[in-house]
Amino acid sequence: MIQRVCVAGAGSIGSLYAGHLAQVCDVVVLCRREEQARALREDGLHVSGRSELHSRVEATTDPAELGDVDLVICATKGPDLDAVASRLEGHALEASVMTVQNGLGAEEIVARHGEWPLISAVTFMSGTRQSDTHVEYVLDTATWLGPYGSTTFVNVREVAGLIVSSGLKAEAFEDLQPAQWSKLIFNATVNAVAALTGLPHDFHFAAEERPSDLGHLVHALVDEGKAVAAAAGIELGEDPWKMNVLATRRGSAHSPSMLEDVEARRPTEIETITGSLIREAERLGVPVPLHTALYRLVKAREASYSE
Amino acid sequence: MIQRVCVAGAGSIGSLYAGHLAQVCDVVVLCRREEQARALREDGLHVSGRSELHSRVEATTDPAELGDVDLVICATKGPDLDAVASRLEGHALEASVMTVQNGLGAEEIVARHGEWPLISAVTFMSGTRQSDTHVEYVLDTATWLGPYGSTTFVNVREVAGLIVSSGLKAEAFEDLQPAQWSKLIFNATVNAVAALTGLPHDFHFAAEERPSDLGHLVHALVDEGKAVAAAAGIELGEDPWKMNVLATRRGSAHSPSMLEDVEARRPTEIETITGSLIREAERLGVPVPLHTALYRLVKAREASYSE
Repeated sequence: MIQRVCVAGAGSIGSLYAGHLAQVCDVVVLCRREEQARALREDGLHVSGRSELHSRVEATTDPAELGDVDLVICATKGPDLDAVASRLEGHALEASVMTVQNGLGAEEIVARHGEWPLISAVTFMSGTRQSDTHVEYVLDTATWLGPYGSTTFVNVREVAGLIVSSGLKAEAFEDLQPAQWSKLIFNATVNAVAALTGLPHDFHFAAEERPSDLGHLVHALVDEGKAVAAAAGIELGEDPWKMNVLATRRGSAHSPSMLEDVEARRPTEIETITGSLIREAERLGVPVPLHTALYRLVKAREASYSE
Repeated sequence: MIQRVCVAGAGSIGSLYAGHLAQVCDVVVLCRREEQARALREDGLHVSGRSELHSRVEATTDPAELGDVDLVICATKGPDLDAVASRLEGHALEASVMTVQNGLGAEEIVARHGEWPLISAVTFMSGTRQSDTHVEYVLDTATWLGPYGSTTFVNVREVAGLIVSSGLKAEAFEDLQPAQWSKLIFNATVNAVAALTGLPHDFHFAAEERPSDLGHLVHALVDEGKAVAAAAGIELGEDPWKMNVLATRRGSAHSPSMLEDVEARRPTEIETITGSLIREAERLGVPVPLHTALYRLVKAREASYSE
């Protein structure tokens, strides 16, 4: 039974997990900044929006203080995963470790630092960080989980059950790869296009009437991604094009994180998301000229910050 | 002999022609706004930067007041050319008409409105409009001219000579198409990439060391354009890739107009520049997937202004 969970990384996704899980078990947050750890110990975690709750959590910057945790959720952004896994080395030895990073290969990165049973996950929920101790829960969509390597499906189901009991949405899959790839293709396409055009994920992404319409490009990017998945022997879960069309029909258009990043002139996740798709395509010999073009354009956009 | 010139359109390029030519012949500026016509009549035209001069010019919004002009220079942006040519209909009947718009097909647009001898031109000079009566002359590069249809080369040389005598740079070509196409390919590539990345035309555009480098994309865009030119039977003038590399080695990086347009949230010339390349590619059956992708991205960027 899972009694104690470590959430490593307290950005918006980590805070959503920590705030909710602390309602049903002990939670210790592994922070990078002592200032945030202190604020969390003193004020707890406030979640508003789709949930309204206030949780007491433990918090530390020292992995030696985590105690006997049964589960670690690595909730950092992709580029920070290696650093956080390295800090966990030699700690939480009885725990399973769950990764929720975008892109491919998060599990391999963690595996280099310990022999924890690994759980693959992708999350579709989203939140906006209001402060070190307050996160707004925006999209209440699910986290999908699956076993990685020799991890048992029973273990995965238990974690999914815990997440559901805490008030978030979760679903366990015997094989997560179809969902992981669908999300990768969706993410690589929608994030890069939003970052370059300045458009939130709105109706333009599905428009295919006039030759100038953006939907033609979005569709072609999805098709490139599907060709890579097919060459990798993956049978996709949801069709990323349908995910795109459905998402654009929601009431208010979502601002993909990469758009928020370029508007704030922050580094984006282009390397973790589109980069991992391109590297996989290269390994498999599948041409992805459009994703490669967008990858270079977003990299150049990042370079423009220092102009 | 050319004694009286009409400059139609007093943006930065039109003002540079009008201010200089008024030093060597009579100039009348055809304005869209009465306010600007009045200001020009009262204050004349001030050119600073690469030149320093102050010229008296006539100015009007009424084409019936142009008088007997020998040459009309249509210096509007591409999307406004049809409107200005339509206003010239039935006027300036003894004049030759010179077009300097980016893209392809400006001459055909003017030809629909009158039987003037036509002169094709492309200009590499640039200026910054400071006010209705003041333009800063920034890049003192040449205007290239050539005959269109049955226009004689003697006529073209006379116009080029007049421009040179006024203090600007100009060169006459028996066939302008090679230069026009080189500039089109260069412009379609550099403008769209700059608009999407936020980068001025700097060293990133020529970098081809790492796989993520922007130069690979720029090179591939140039190659697509060259394939269209080859299919159209055009032997290019300068190699657009070499033009790109050379331009990035100039001292200070130039901000392409399309980058300035998206930063000011103005409509861009994407339709006149990249649009004309894509339409020509389609007519000739040449695939241009990368230019098409950038075309749709810039169109979507324009759509984002109203979000």
